[in-house]
Amino acid sequence: MSEMIDRQADLLISARHLLTMHDGSDVIEDGAVAVCGDSILEIGKQSELIEKYPTAEHLHQPGGLIMPGLVNVHTHAAMSCFRGLADDLPLMEWLQEHIFPAEARINEKIVYQATLLSTLEMIRSGTTSFCDMYLFAHEVARAADKSGMRSWIGEVVYDFPSPCYGEVENCYAHIDSLAARYASNSRVNITVDPHAIYTCSPDLLVRLKEKAAELDTLYVIHLAETQFENDDAKEKFGLTPVKHLESLGVLDHRVVADHCVVLTDDEISLLADKQVKVAHCPESNMKLASGVAPIPQMLKAGLTIGIGTDGPASNNDVDMFGEMDTAAKLHKVKSLDPTVMDAFTTLHMATLGGAAVLGAEQEIGSLAPGKKADMIILDMAQPHLTPLYDIPSHLVYAARGADVVHSIINGQMVMKNRQFTQLDENEILANVSEIAAEIKG
Amino acid sequence: MSEMIDRQADLLISARHLLTMHDGSDVIEDGAVAVCGDSILEIGKQSELIEKYPTAEHLHQPGGLIMPGLVNVHTHAAMSCFRGLADDLPLMEWLQEHIFPAEARINEKIVYQATLLSTLEMIRSGTTSFCDMYLFAHEVARAADKSGMRSWIGEVVYDFPSPCYGEVENCYAHIDSLAARYASNSRVNITVDPHAIYTCSPDLLVRLKEKAAELDTLYVIHLAETQFENDDAKEKFGLTPVKHLESLGVLDHRVVADHCVVLTDDEISLLADKQVKVAHCPESNMKLASGVAPIPQMLKAGLTIGIGTDGPASNNDVDMFGEMDTAAKLHKVKSLDPTVMDAFTTLHMATLGGAAVLGAEQEIGSLAPGKKADMIILDMAQPHLTPLYDIPSHLVYAARGADVVHSIINGQMVMKNRQFTQLDENEILANVSEIAAEIKG
Repeated sequence: MSEMIDRQADLLISARHLLTMHDGSDVIEDGAVAVCGDSILEIGKQSELIEKYPTAEHLHQPGGLIMPGLVNVHTHAAMSCFRGLADDLPLMEWLQEHIFPAEARINEKIVYQATLLSTLEMIRSGTTSFCDMYLFAHEVARAADKSGMRSWIGEVVYDFPSPCYGEVENCYAHIDSLAARYASNSRVNITVDPHAIYTCSPDLLVRLKEKAAELDTLYVIHLAETQFENDDAKEKFGLTPVKHLESLGVLDHRVVADHCVVLTDDEISLLADKQVKVAHCPESNMKLASGVAPIPQMLKAGLTIGIGTDGPASNNDVDMFGEMDTAAKLHKVKSLDPTVMDAFTTLHMATLGGAAVLGAEQEIGSLAPGKKADMIILDMAQPHLTPLYDIPSHLVYAARGADVVHSIINGQMVMKNRQFTQLDENEILANVSEIAAEIKG
Repeated sequence: MSEMIDRQADLLISARHLLTMHDGSDVIEDGAVAVCGDSILEIGKQSELIEKYPTAEHLHQPGGLIMPGLVNVHTHAAMSCFRGLADDLPLMEWLQEHIFPAEARINEKIVYQATLLSTLEMIRSGTTSFCDMYLFAHEVARAADKSGMRSWIGEVVYDFPSPCYGEVENCYAHIDSLAARYASNSRVNITVDPHAIYTCSPDLLVRLKEKAAELDTLYVIHLAETQFENDDAKEKFGLTPVKHLESLGVLDHRVVADHCVVLTDDEISLLADKQVKVAHCPESNMKLASGVAPIPQMLKAGLTIGIGTDGPASNNDVDMFGEMDTAAKLHKVKSLDPTVMDAFTTLHMATLGGAAVLGAEQEIGSLAPGKKADMIILDMAQPHLTPLYDIPSHLVYAARGADVVHSIINGQMVMKNRQFTQLDENEILANVSEIAAEIKG
């Protein structure tokens, strides 16, 4: 503690409002965050911290709001190269006639550039951490690392040969090599990602769980996304997807289950008992007409839930502000109850809840001394954010990604006045536009 | 026609893409719009129009898209002063304990400033026309006129005394005076607005319809918004809200029915037969947990439908781009069919469909020679709009209000590079913040 007191801040961020999310929705007016290295040193009143840390670089946003960076718990960032390629189609036609043929032509270069594109969009719309499942994960990781973002990245694994690692048997060595490469990286975390129960054999699901345990990392899987998946599992295994995973013994607190749309009350209880974490992707579930995940019921059961955008091909953006708005409204109309998914609950899910899904709630998701310095600053002095009665309400129902002006991740300013410090925006836009011309063919 | 050919353009707008919405989703690459006075003179290739109109002021947006301005067919713009005052509450508690007490303190000054605030937000997010129902409509009209926007404005009328015109009997003279004041205004249109069947007696509903007929204007009414309204009507009148209006003989092609959430197939057919127009407000219906309007069924029945945001207190924004995104996704998940409400259908509803709801499809809603020059220009050279395969898809699923850089209404540049030409943004924000402090008390 005495060590903390003696340390000097490198950076001081101040603004009209400071929402820490650490003690509920309490707001510090004229607040400031002192940053030292990659971490938060102190939080308090602007006037006091300016006096205490006179040598720190000072960034002040007069009509601004400082808050924790948003955590996107499920995406396929590289699918930005397919954004708008095909929409409004039945799921199987969309996948089989458009996405799979396009993905057959994908390669390392495309994945790297398209992931960079999504990091531009994520940073600019307030996301500081994301959890990604895709092909050529080493390129996803390279792009994520370059962007300055915090990430959880897994190579997608299934029964058939991969364009990345070849025969399925090679997946384990590939995962090991990924994990080894990023073992000492403070921002990139490697996960183990079986695609889904309908694309992975029971044996593969179990062996990947052993790998995840060995690496002490997350096991990320699409689960119960559609009625089709449910019906198919019952036919093949005589069990629902959730019960199938339970029977294989893979459900535990390190499992991140993406979607969870088609669940019974029993399955919700089971997931809660096993401390499985849930990634809720309302816009993708709406656009693909998968259904509405029973989030209010899962919250009641005590499940830990974060919000994800899913890939940009089924959304078609990775803007977590829009996703919060949709999440809050969707569950109200689904249940015909305007009190469910209130603004604070939704905001919590996109910050501290998301951090907890990734097992990182001690590090990120709220602003407190000792936590990583991952924060965003919004410009609240705008027509659509005026007047200001209640900050969580504004962040969920009125703010948009475009309101974010600065982003700090791991103590580093990755965006200042909406300009990127780590990435060349024009070069990435040009590269992906060229790639898109090839994809369209 | 020869007259048109000889006329010179005052203003030439050009961009990489031009979506007219006049012949479906056809796009002119490197297109331009020549404007003369308040109208569109010619549409074509940039190179040709530059040569043809050398003296016109030329605004070019290199990576831009020109499209018709969006039409918001239902809002209560002045409710921006209640944005975020109370959320996530049961409808009756929200209305009776928060909105009605706040509205009891409303006055001309508040309505004027809060409407100005919404015009800032609407212009900045791409809306060029709006249809508004509220108290002190003369102040709404004054603000709308000052903003440069095109508007359809009605004084809300109900059985009880109004803070604006006093006893209900005074409403007719008030409407007459409004209509007279704006009779020769080319942008402000006055409508007749009974609040709803549960707040207006049958006699009032009929007399207001006679007034609308006399003034040859729209009859705008909240209709079948909630199950409560439906149940209440059956109890009071033995009829659903739609059948009640039919029994009174007021349903015709000049009726704009807001919401239409709770409808039977029979009622959809009836509304179609009577050529009633529908204002669809998905986000408000979600946030207040009213339900999902049967829009795909109404489209099949041939109804003319536009999109509205409803007031900023139940949304909480007036961004029509976000509203399109939500509309398209909501009906997919409601029907479990990803093919309904495709991007073009949704975009049509927010442009030409909205214009038709207001009886103005010959004047606005698409870009064509002779139509009013109401258009917006978006910056498409951004991460979240890259790559670009399909323009309607991007406009519905990826673009946001913040992507709009210029707005031209009635031939006048009301926003250039996101700066307002008719309004003092800082002054309005300061005024409404002061008003909010009074409202909060």
